Amino acid sequence: MKETFGKVTILRFLPTYTSLVHVRDISTELSTELFILTYGTLVAQLCEDYEKDEDINKQLDKMGRNIGMKLVEDFLARSNIAQCRNFYETADVIAKVAFKMYLGVTPRVTFWSQAGDDCSLFLEKNPLLGYVEIPEKHSCLLYSNMICGILKGALKMVRLQVDIQLLQDLVKDDKVTEIRMKLMRRHKVVRTVEKEQRYCGDT
Amino acid sequence: MKETFGKVTILRFLPTYTSLVHVRDISTELSTELFILTYGTLVAQLCEDYEKDEDINKQLDKMGRNIGMKLVEDFLARSNIAQCRNFYETADVIAKVAFKMYLGVTPRVTFWSQAGDDCSLFLEKNPLLGYVEIPEKHSCLLYSNMICGILKGALKMVRLQVDIQLLQDLVKDDKVTEIRMKLMRRHKVVRTVEKEQRYCGDT
Repeated sequence: MKETFGKVTILRFLPTYTSLVHVRDISTELSTELFILTYGTLVAQLCEDYEKDEDINKQLDKMGRNIGMKLVEDFLARSNIAQCRNFYETADVIAKVAFKMYLGVTPRVTFWSQAGDDCSLFLEKNPLLGYVEIPEKHSCLLYSNMICGILKGALKMVRLQVDIQLLQDLVKDDKVTEIRMKLMRRHKVVRTVEKEQRYCGDT
Repeated sequence: MKETFGKVTILRFLPTYTSLVHVRDISTELSTELFILTYGTLVAQLCEDYEKDEDINKQLDKMGRNIGMKLVEDFLARSNIAQCRNFYETADVIAKVAFKMYLGVTPRVTFWSQAGDDCSLFLEKNPLLGYVEIPEKHSCLLYSNMICGILKGALKMVRLQVDIQLLQDLVKDDKVTEIRMKLMRRHKVVRTVEKEQRYCGDT
């Protein structure tokens, strides 16, 4: 097993909005097919690099987190979304704005836990799965797992630690792709602010 | 050095138009940023897998050829292009239709050889290069080399063997991305037809 992506230095992503605006200026629309095939090529490369499906899944998740941490900047700049007040709102924004913006589909948000910190996203059509059939020996491969990583990385940047798992995937003859999201905790900075607010409220 | 991609079996690309139409139905537009970041992730992975830039370049070319061989089917279905009569027309279709369709940009076609079998495509804006800075140790990396592979793979499927090289790339502080295309030969089937035509003409 190799743990490689964390050390990658080839891409130094530019941190300012300027770079993102520049990118949007030069190309407004890339072909879906080209993206799908490139994603497939990336998964195929990982299948050569790693023996175990579990390691490929981990790597896809890790790569996704790197992407999500950059993509969130673009998302905030383009969507002009105000800060969400609770996890219901967050899930709604993910499904109706983020998925629509980046994958062209809108998953259903459902199966909420009573505490409101745990829900499922259901995609009846998963754009990543064009062209793909997985051989039986890769029965544990979570082909679309990068999506989970992207969500984790993006949410981390807005100070939310969320556990995200791919529970079902169309590629395995499941009828839908199901992504389970569980809010673990808010980032320290936010909690401090909340404490301060409570403190102010108590006086 | 590893030579891996040729053995990949994880993706069995479906050979019919049906699959492509299905893909287009489910998502009409994916975000440019997501594609650019995914491509960057793929290059970064190769930089971990291979020691020499030359091997990374070869692998990008090989991956591109696999993609091009699938993508051409989508291109022919969507563009409804008639068969080109010569390499001038082919280069024109590549620049004005294919590049526009898949990368959202239209390169200039110029520097034709007298024989009409050799030309350059100049891209003043290369959409793949958003977010990217290459460290000095990767001075021989051809970051956008997958484009050359895609063109080779696609042209091979329409029976043209074309040598394609990335001569300049914006990422290296060149002012443009230059892709050089040289027609090597037409596929045997076409030559047979041409011979038959000549034979018919001679009688």
